Amino acid sequence: MTPRFRCIPLGGLGEIGRNMMVLEYDRDIVIIDVGVMFPENEMLGVDLVIPDVSYLLDKVDRIRGIIITHGHEDHTGSLPYVLPQLGFPPIWATTLTAGLISVKLKEHRLTDRVAINVISPGKEVRFGALRAEFFRVCHSIPDGVGVALHTPAGLVVHTGDFKFDYTPVDRRQTDFARLAALGAQGVLCLFSDSTHADQAGYTPSERVVGEALDGYFAAARGRIIVTTFASLISRIQQVIDTAARYDRRVGIIGRSMVQNVTIAQELGYLTAPPGVLLKAEELGQLKQLPPRQVVLITTGSQGEPTSALTRMANRDHRQIEIVPGDTVIMSAGPIPGNEELVHRTIDNLFRLGANVLWGHETNVHVSGHASQEELKLMLSLVRPKYFVPVHGEYRHLILHARIAQGLGIPPQNIFVIEDGEVLEIGPERGEVTEHVSAGYVFVDGLGVGDVGQVVLRDRQALAQDGILIVTITVDRHTGLPIAGPDIVSRGFVYVRENEELVEKARAQVQLALRASPAVSRDDEARQVDWQYVKNKIRDVLSRFVYEQTRRRPMILPLVMEV
Amino acid sequence: MTPRFRCIPLGGLGEIGRNMMVLEYDRDIVIIDVGVMFPENEMLGVDLVIPDVSYLLDKVDRIRGIIITHGHEDHTGSLPYVLPQLGFPPIWATTLTAGLISVKLKEHRLTDRVAINVISPGKEVRFGALRAEFFRVCHSIPDGVGVALHTPAGLVVHTGDFKFDYTPVDRRQTDFARLAALGAQGVLCLFSDSTHADQAGYTPSERVVGEALDGYFAAARGRIIVTTFASLISRIQQVIDTAARYDRRVGIIGRSMVQNVTIAQELGYLTAPPGVLLKAEELGQLKQLPPRQVVLITTGSQGEPTSALTRMANRDHRQIEIVPGDTVIMSAGPIPGNEELVHRTIDNLFRLGANVLWGHETNVHVSGHASQEELKLMLSLVRPKYFVPVHGEYRHLILHARIAQGLGIPPQNIFVIEDGEVLEIGPERGEVTEHVSAGYVFVDGLGVGDVGQVVLRDRQALAQDGILIVTITVDRHTGLPIAGPDIVSRGFVYVRENEELVEKARAQVQLALRASPAVSRDDEARQVDWQYVKNKIRDVLSRFVYEQTRRRPMILPLVMEV
Repeated sequence: MTPRFRCIPLGGLGEIGRNMMVLEYDRDIVIIDVGVMFPENEMLGVDLVIPDVSYLLDKVDRIRGIIITHGHEDHTGSLPYVLPQLGFPPIWATTLTAGLISVKLKEHRLTDRVAINVISPGKEVRFGALRAEFFRVCHSIPDGVGVALHTPAGLVVHTGDFKFDYTPVDRRQTDFARLAALGAQGVLCLFSDSTHADQAGYTPSERVVGEALDGYFAAARGRIIVTTFASLISRIQQVIDTAARYDRRVGIIGRSMVQNVTIAQELGYLTAPPGVLLKAEELGQLKQLPPRQVVLITTGSQGEPTSALTRMANRDHRQIEIVPGDTVIMSAGPIPGNEELVHRTIDNLFRLGANVLWGHETNVHVSGHASQEELKLMLSLVRPKYFVPVHGEYRHLILHARIAQGLGIPPQNIFVIEDGEVLEIGPERGEVTEHVSAGYVFVDGLGVGDVGQVVLRDRQALAQDGILIVTITVDRHTGLPIAGPDIVSRGFVYVRENEELVEKARAQVQLALRASPAVSRDDEARQVDWQYVKNKIRDVLSRFVYEQTRRRPMILPLVMEV
Repeated sequence: MTPRFRCIPLGGLGEIGRNMMVLEYDRDIVIIDVGVMFPENEMLGVDLVIPDVSYLLDKVDRIRGIIITHGHEDHTGSLPYVLPQLGFPPIWATTLTAGLISVKLKEHRLTDRVAINVISPGKEVRFGALRAEFFRVCHSIPDGVGVALHTPAGLVVHTGDFKFDYTPVDRRQTDFARLAALGAQGVLCLFSDSTHADQAGYTPSERVVGEALDGYFAAARGRIIVTTFASLISRIQQVIDTAARYDRRVGIIGRSMVQNVTIAQELGYLTAPPGVLLKAEELGQLKQLPPRQVVLITTGSQGEPTSALTRMANRDHRQIEIVPGDTVIMSAGPIPGNEELVHRTIDNLFRLGANVLWGHETNVHVSGHASQEELKLMLSLVRPKYFVPVHGEYRHLILHARIAQGLGIPPQNIFVIEDGEVLEIGPERGEVTEHVSAGYVFVDGLGVGDVGQVVLRDRQALAQDGILIVTITVDRHTGLPIAGPDIVSRGFVYVRENEELVEKARAQVQLALRASPAVSRDDEARQVDWQYVKNKIRDVLSRFVYEQTRRRPMILPLVMEV
């Protein structure tokens, strides 16, 4: 039997986020990344979306380890939910990534149960018959790696998230040499990041942002407030460096920002000249500093309603009030779906008199993902036999596949697969052999998986036109109504101004009740078919309300027997 | 008394859409545009947002007319709602605009009540002491105009929506000469379109899209499906022209698309060589035509769930099935807030095997709004004394104001005002003298204004965590519960899998009822304070549910007395 190698994406293929790839050879399983996805606008009330790991539940004893490529939420965020289901397999990650994971597991009180092993690029780790080595990649967080997995079937390379930055802030380039050497050895299959496969050209170096910041810092006469993702350690480093050059002190605002800066400092991934960073207890004295000596780095780059920057923009922050003369730098792009919130924040900051810098042309943000020409470079270095685009919505995967085809990989060796499609690869061919369950699992509050499509559909209906509740109390002996029908609505119309409509609706229900044969049959009243009556009420009311208002509120008849 | 001129924006300043400007001199009022705004994501269930015209209600006899600058919804869409409130003042618009308005008024059965007067650029119309002339502007719909209003206080120029396109499809450029002549006469105040004030450089000519289409048509081997806004008549013209060049026949799909094409053809603003356009009755025979002889123009460029293209992408369209070999051209940008829907449509089209062209780099769409350099050209031609940026969210207005300042207009002569701010302008100075009501009025189904903040907040709460309804029937004489408490939920958890939680919640309510002094006081039971009991139930249940789930569903206790 030819040795075959299986890959089962449980997240991140066909969507942005919740990246999780299961790699399987014979009895050994290695997992790369266990990320979270942020809900789309229509996933109402959902906090997080995590992978469905049911495929793994009867294979827990075969999981040799979980490799986390870098410390972003879309690669680490589902660990607290998935680890307990998988019997806490050991985690392997670089120093900074391990540090960030520790913080997360501590919050979920899982620290005691998990072994986190620190890896470093160039070193190898054995996972049963599999052998993993790690190579340095540049991304928008330091200490990212890709994985080269040596399997008896051949060498498999997974890039993680990456870009080719010739001048990264931490001076650690993506490891061209090792990638080329792997390519020379012969790579069976490459999994490569597709997030920006729709972007032509090259992603600019993180250095570009530093140069832009320098200009804006030189020009600013008042306070400077920079917002970015809390995980963008390199960006935060550049802000601190620029602040130091312009004799400004830096305050860190927002829980996740403080947390990440602290851990990155402890582990040596973020450095500040003495006296530049304000200590937590010094933040209260911010007002004593002249505005032109102050920089604040804050959360809120996505316009999140409870974030520090959004509160400032809404004049709702305890400590910081935006004043004319402030410069606010939006050092992050809006994640698709967040545009309205981000723009509202920018508008409100302008309304308070701040100057706001945002958008492509200001150079205050660059992406951490490779654009098309970099994807070509990766493919050219690694020269794989088979290619699987990963990390992207479907169009990204398709565009990345086309790039690979343009570089000469035959179409039959390129696999555009989505979550749950099991790809088996041998030396001679690859094929999708199976589909496993890989749908969305929703986290809402403490609940994991208890909000499903039924609940979401109800929320969507409630959101659209609200709810009309009809209550009736009936005599269980006669089957006759003895109180009600009462009608209460929420999210439908403002009732005080629409009493007439509600009164008419009530009359409709009364008519329906009277006309209902089920209710009039009082000789054998206990047999009254309440489901029939409820359906009847729902039909009559639904039609009446639609005629009157062209709306379709949820209609909920409640019958109590006494 | 120096003659003063008042402008009162009732929409479009501080937001994109529902453009409506009231211009007032002494006893004469002219209104420019009565547009609609599409709801933001958080305006749940709302269909349209229209201006609040309460400022005008006691001045109806002074309204001399409504000028509509062009036929887009954000300039015409509130007419059916606002005209009746204002006693049907006469409308003035160019031929195509008038045609599109007629269609709209007909749908609302208002045709008989409204006089639509056709104007043409270069002609003048008297509105009491005011005299309006119209000048040609290029935009993404033909027959657009700006307005020069001659008032005793001075000359006021309103650009409407515009760009400077040297090679528009209909060959009618923005009227440089007239604008320059007005500037030479001396313009008191300029109102200018700010929609793209955040875009550097020049907006490309509509011609660019034609050139891009030509290349894609030349390369396509199968069917071509083009989606765009139904109002983009020039775009539709270019698709028809290109189709004719490549011997393809064109089918028009989607109600609004068919409607607009029909009226534009009738009025001579859209022409097709004989035989190119498929008649409605020929659409059924589409399948008989070889794919490479077919072009479809369809609605759905925003991923609207019920649009033709979205249905095709979801394999849910009655007539058209997407097959490998189809080329789909997304000839429109996503309106902010629609990105998720548009991307989902693109992904689904790719999944069905189509090739999809979208985005900036494909040149399949250009904007109809002036970018920064064009805004400078407008300001330089008109050379106004006072400047008011219009049509834009707050940041657009601010950036446009900065552009004007950069061209030498003194800051005190630039007015960044928002909806409801009354600006009075005289020869010597301008000032905001008053704030009038100009909030959002929501249209939901047939209801206009009956969905307000209370209803929206309820919908948001329901969308977030659903609703828990607690019903109890009590004896009105004893005040004691005789049925229930029953608990029903919607949009909270999937109850079948969470019966235990619901049972515990019921127990909590029972405990609360027993502990409630109001209920035990059965000697004077009719005095039972049900509001107190309801609040108590709400408190107890809210706390219990939050502890158990970290969710905050709406809790609605309903008590029936028998």
